[in-house]
Amino acid sequence: MLNIAMLPSPLDFSTSYLSTSTIVALCVFFGLLCSCIIVGHLLEENRWANESITALLLGLCSGVVVLLVTKFRSTKILIFSEDLFFLYLLPPIIFNAGFQDKKKQFFRNFITILLFGVLGTVISFCLISLGAFLLFTRIGITNLGIKDHLAIGAILSATDSVCTLQVLSQDETPLLYSIVFGEGVVNDATSIVLFNSVQTLNFSTMNAITALKLLGTFFYLFCTSTALGIILYADLLYDDEFFRHSTDREVALMMLMAYLSYMIAELLNLSGILTIFFCGIVMSHYTWHNVTGSSRTTTKHAFATISFIAETFIFLYVGMDAFDVDKWKTSKASIGTSVAVSSTLIALVLIGRAAFVFSIANITNCTKTRESAKIEFRSQFIIWWAGLMRGAVTIALSYNQFSKSEIASTEDSALMITSTIILVLFSTVVFGSITKPLIEAVKLRQSKPAISDSTDNQEDLRLLFLESNCSINQTNHHESQSRRRSSLSLMIRHPTTTVHYFWRKFDDKFMRPVFGGRGFIPAVPGSPPAEEEIS
Amino acid sequence: MLNIAMLPSPLDFSTSYLSTSTIVALCVFFGLLCSCIIVGHLLEENRWANESITALLLGLCSGVVVLLVTKFRSTKILIFSEDLFFLYLLPPIIFNAGFQDKKKQFFRNFITILLFGVLGTVISFCLISLGAFLLFTRIGITNLGIKDHLAIGAILSATDSVCTLQVLSQDETPLLYSIVFGEGVVNDATSIVLFNSVQTLNFSTMNAITALKLLGTFFYLFCTSTALGIILYADLLYDDEFFRHSTDREVALMMLMAYLSYMIAELLNLSGILTIFFCGIVMSHYTWHNVTGSSRTTTKHAFATISFIAETFIFLYVGMDAFDVDKWKTSKASIGTSVAVSSTLIALVLIGRAAFVFSIANITNCTKTRESAKIEFRSQFIIWWAGLMRGAVTIALSYNQFSKSEIASTEDSALMITSTIILVLFSTVVFGSITKPLIEAVKLRQSKPAISDSTDNQEDLRLLFLESNCSINQTNHHESQSRRRSSLSLMIRHPTTTVHYFWRKFDDKFMRPVFGGRGFIPAVPGSPPAEEEIS
Repeated sequence: MLNIAMLPSPLDFSTSYLSTSTIVALCVFFGLLCSCIIVGHLLEENRWANESITALLLGLCSGVVVLLVTKFRSTKILIFSEDLFFLYLLPPIIFNAGFQDKKKQFFRNFITILLFGVLGTVISFCLISLGAFLLFTRIGITNLGIKDHLAIGAILSATDSVCTLQVLSQDETPLLYSIVFGEGVVNDATSIVLFNSVQTLNFSTMNAITALKLLGTFFYLFCTSTALGIILYADLLYDDEFFRHSTDREVALMMLMAYLSYMIAELLNLSGILTIFFCGIVMSHYTWHNVTGSSRTTTKHAFATISFIAETFIFLYVGMDAFDVDKWKTSKASIGTSVAVSSTLIALVLIGRAAFVFSIANITNCTKTRESAKIEFRSQFIIWWAGLMRGAVTIALSYNQFSKSEIASTEDSALMITSTIILVLFSTVVFGSITKPLIEAVKLRQSKPAISDSTDNQEDLRLLFLESNCSINQTNHHESQSRRRSSLSLMIRHPTTTVHYFWRKFDDKFMRPVFGGRGFIPAVPGSPPAEEEIS
Repeated sequence: MLNIAMLPSPLDFSTSYLSTSTIVALCVFFGLLCSCIIVGHLLEENRWANESITALLLGLCSGVVVLLVTKFRSTKILIFSEDLFFLYLLPPIIFNAGFQDKKKQFFRNFITILLFGVLGTVISFCLISLGAFLLFTRIGITNLGIKDHLAIGAILSATDSVCTLQVLSQDETPLLYSIVFGEGVVNDATSIVLFNSVQTLNFSTMNAITALKLLGTFFYLFCTSTALGIILYADLLYDDEFFRHSTDREVALMMLMAYLSYMIAELLNLSGILTIFFCGIVMSHYTWHNVTGSSRTTTKHAFATISFIAETFIFLYVGMDAFDVDKWKTSKASIGTSVAVSSTLIALVLIGRAAFVFSIANITNCTKTRESAKIEFRSQFIIWWAGLMRGAVTIALSYNQFSKSEIASTEDSALMITSTIILVLFSTVVFGSITKPLIEAVKLRQSKPAISDSTDNQEDLRLLFLESNCSINQTNHHESQSRRRSSLSLMIRHPTTTVHYFWRKFDDKFMRPVFGGRGFIPAVPGSPPAEEEIS
């Protein structure tokens, strides 16, 4: 304490290598992140709240505090940089979605998930774009081009189903959980690819060919990015013994390779998001089984943690940014216009989602003969509801489109950003807090799928054991029973199961010998504990 | 492939949200990082190479490639930002050093480590500063002020003992390993604090009081930062059950709290480095034992991995930056001057380290009566050698001091940076590659400390069991033997052991009840596996 007098003034001191404002901003942000985690954990049992809502509300509160402290001049502590989002926050979230993906269920319901995630998102994109195009001129927003309307469609198609997933139980309703989860991640990737496709096209001359071009670009991006993601992963780790004694190297290489796949895809002008998503799936399917036990635990939890922090960070930021004075001033819209635009967007989201969820669900139901595989109305409702929340991706894409927009009217662009923020806040807080009670009420009498799905599992196992020439005793009585069915009749009766079955066969024959991994062979009783595995 | 024709040019495409140059730079860097890990792993058995050398040489090679590609205009792929270093790369390295620290040995040899790490670094700092002040004017460098000479002293005092630690075995030579490791981490922190102290003082009027002020600032920073690090850590995690079922939350909170402690220290104008270092020690001593098993595995390996990546990143960067044309042009020094300055720096490093290692070792030897606790000449030589390498901290501090120097002569500043780079390259590559063969040669006949140290351990355990009123049967015969000795006689005979013993008593009585943690109580046989723990 004696030395205080000789110490220089605070400012002199800390500028030695870091600027004070950076340090203050980081302190506040990391402090808020810690609070979010603790408060979110304390509120876990609460039926109205979840982590996203906590982060948003904490962000809003601190935004107000900063606004008061700076005397209504600014709420900016950190400037939202798209680089930050697309380089550091989004890749871990998407990679983790692929990595933690419940692969068994994912591949079992592959076609349904793709229908919802890809086709559904495209339908939603078309409807929202069309709706925005038709309705916005009536409200008085005339300065947006065709590209902006299409971008709005893509921006609003990116759902955030985290909230619903916290309520659904994977054991009680495996089919529903798998569809909601699978659709959520495929949807994010699809809407980002759609957004990219929209941005790359030239809409000065709009005609039928442009629409075809858009579709072509979308499928080109989708397929090549997927292929790249599957090819590009740490197949060096294939060799069981290569890094066997060095967990740190294994983990480092898995992290770096995942990130590298994202960067390479961006470099090749493909969609990094899709690539890193499939890289995550492939890595957890093959590589993950070749590394040491501690590497498995570490990667599983480290990726989940990083993704968790990134998500909390984004919600916190969105909350803080809601009171950005500059943006509200720039938009110059009256409260009436603001409310009108936001309500229109919310209505479009509701309708756009309803249009594809119920129609796709009923179409897939028609193709299925077994009652158990059908998606009943209650489940359809939950799937519809799960996709109403809008989150980080929507905000990021909206900033990307409208913050540096070339359109003459910056007013309308600012209005679009503020309306998106309102939409995200409203859907996350209002829809989000109703989710838990609502789904619990809907689920009350819904125990049928759980039972029927276990029957499915048995059938699947039967097929597997039959074809792998596996001679485990307990399956013998199944074999004699199943042998009578030909592959063709199976194909006709259960198309999804059969696709899954052929994928397994392909995987066991060609993929595993090359890339390693445990594949789909069921764990031998007495083998390493199952809870360690991503099941 | 059909769609290629309709696709826009690459540049149009990727600028959608990331600039092409950023993506290329990140691709190259992540690719190089991956190569470093793989090549470093393949060369692990090689007696001349290690990961630092691999990263440096790979960096050098890619620097040359970039130089040729850009036709001798630039080697800059990424610009070395001090923010990047001090905000993102250094904190994980230092935190991990504290977190992975072999605490038992660290506290056992606490006084010796502090003598080497703090007093030794101060002696080295004084000698190198004095040497630079006296010798540089003779070479013809006249534009450096007193502050620059002191800064050079601090910059060159930061050692990098990773290379030696890879060769030493913790089991064979626990005392030596613990001293080299402990000194290495304390040294980094000390030299950064010294550097900060130098930067804050006003040297326009140099007199005896300034020297005292420097000393005062140094101790003020050292003590307050240490205290802050110990106080600030996730003691919320104290409650065993709080996060029990959520590994991701636990891991996230540990990461964020560590980083927050760094930021708060910087905000309070203390040394973030020291704070995060002690935060790491405290966290692994108390918090770590309260979290779930998977959190332990995850944090242990995740922190080590991040630190490993950060270190590789820095060495890679230093290698790439060595051929920075601008810097060499700015320095304008002839090859003769460059060589003279670099040789002077290397000589100063050698002498500065020799001066304190051998003297401190011999002084501590005098205070010890037991032969086993003494540091024999061979060990002294290894300790001296371990601290000759210079690494990331040296480079970062040198950039900090000389890249934005206020001195009129930017030539001399540039010369200092290039000379530091030469020093780091030379010491890492030349000294680094000799390390393995040299230490193996020196260690050949050195098996005595290993045996004697196990005797130490027994004695320590005896003390512990005696005082904890522990009634485990197998220690009974030790007790009757030890009970005769009074605490006072022990204090006189083995001062270090006794300090450690009193710390244990304090820890068990006051710290553990408040903060939780297993403390120093030896693991009960049959308790969770020992390899899971940081031992």
